[in-house]
Amino acid sequence: MAVRVDLNISLDGFATTTDQTPENPFGEDWGRLTGAYAATRTFRERVLQDTSGGGTTGVDDDYARAYFAELGAEIMGAGMFGLHDHPDDPDWRGWWGDEPPFHVPVFVLTRTAPRPSIAMAGGTTFHFLAASPAEALERATDAAGGKDVRIGGGPTVVRDFLKAGLVDQLHVAIAPILLGRGIRLWDDLRGWESGYDVEVAGAESGTTHVTFRR
Amino acid sequence: MAVRVDLNISLDGFATTTDQTPENPFGEDWGRLTGAYAATRTFRERVLQDTSGGGTTGVDDDYARAYFAELGAEIMGAGMFGLHDHPDDPDWRGWWGDEPPFHVPVFVLTRTAPRPSIAMAGGTTFHFLAASPAEALERATDAAGGKDVRIGGGPTVVRDFLKAGLVDQLHVAIAPILLGRGIRLWDDLRGWESGYDVEVAGAESGTTHVTFRR
Repeated sequence: MAVRVDLNISLDGFATTTDQTPENPFGEDWGRLTGAYAATRTFRERVLQDTSGGGTTGVDDDYARAYFAELGAEIMGAGMFGLHDHPDDPDWRGWWGDEPPFHVPVFVLTRTAPRPSIAMAGGTTFHFLAASPAEALERATDAAGGKDVRIGGGPTVVRDFLKAGLVDQLHVAIAPILLGRGIRLWDDLRGWESGYDVEVAGAESGTTHVTFRR
Repeated sequence: MAVRVDLNISLDGFATTTDQTPENPFGEDWGRLTGAYAATRTFRERVLQDTSGGGTTGVDDDYARAYFAELGAEIMGAGMFGLHDHPDDPDWRGWWGDEPPFHVPVFVLTRTAPRPSIAMAGGTTFHFLAASPAEALERATDAAGGKDVRIGGGPTVVRDFLKAGLVDQLHVAIAPILLGRGIRLWDDLRGWESGYDVEVAGAESGTTHVTFRR
């Protein structure tokens, strides 16, 4: 059992994009940041339920498979679940549709009013917690049944867990683009890598996969 | 003939280190930032004049060989030559010893008092210019005799050339360390990669080599 992070970041270290508009709610940059991952066969099968056999099958797909393997629970921030955009909607169920791609218990960190858990199709249940990183991790570890716990994001939440020393494996997929603005993953983490082994792999897409493990 | 940049940066994008002391003038971090390059057989042969055959021979060494290949001239900032640390010393000849590892004309950008050129052993001649990036590049291109011109550093000078659209090939060797402070290479370069092809390679050392070419 390991506590894992998997994030897509730009070469200049940004894990969020800033060019969202009402007409283009994801923005152009999000597609560029996550495009190599979204192009993999594994993403198509696991997230898009597209079993036609399309998608890339190289280094990026190897990491996409690892992304989904052995996961027992996930922790995410309120922003990633969409609570910041839907603060007053008690019926908000996230933006992943009726069958979210997690298929495990997901713990959403929020300090706003308590919400009842939401069971979705496909095995995903969203639970809402006002808890410290360590407390949330204890809850998620119990729920994971011996499998891995992922800290899913956003980057500020990930950084809280990294700084608290709670992460066993950090995998970043670095897109070869310069976003210039957004939230930086790496801020205030000087020397964090101490005690970790590192493995790097370049993908055909131009994406670099860097993995720290302890 | 291409205008090239080769830089060592940390995973969080810093191209300089900050832990220099009088007792340790390079600091510990500089060794961590450049260690994989300094361990290569090519570095040992070309910079240390160590022909004993030691040093690494993998991916890092492939890039070290390319670093020295086809170079006709180099441009660097005053700080990289040491003029900021030796402003009043007319006899300062840089910190690379009697036979610097460049073996080509080197153009040092400085706005302080003009200095005569300095011819060193091994083919390196230092010239001092008060010039814009484009003007300096014109001088260096003339001197390079059809070979490549490198913008050697520091990162602020490199960024000036990148922003001016003067660089054909940018190679960064990314060390898997988080320095947390220093001068960032990537600041204010949003979208710079447009129009470039990119190639990435992971080295055994944990270094990632990212190369943009147009």
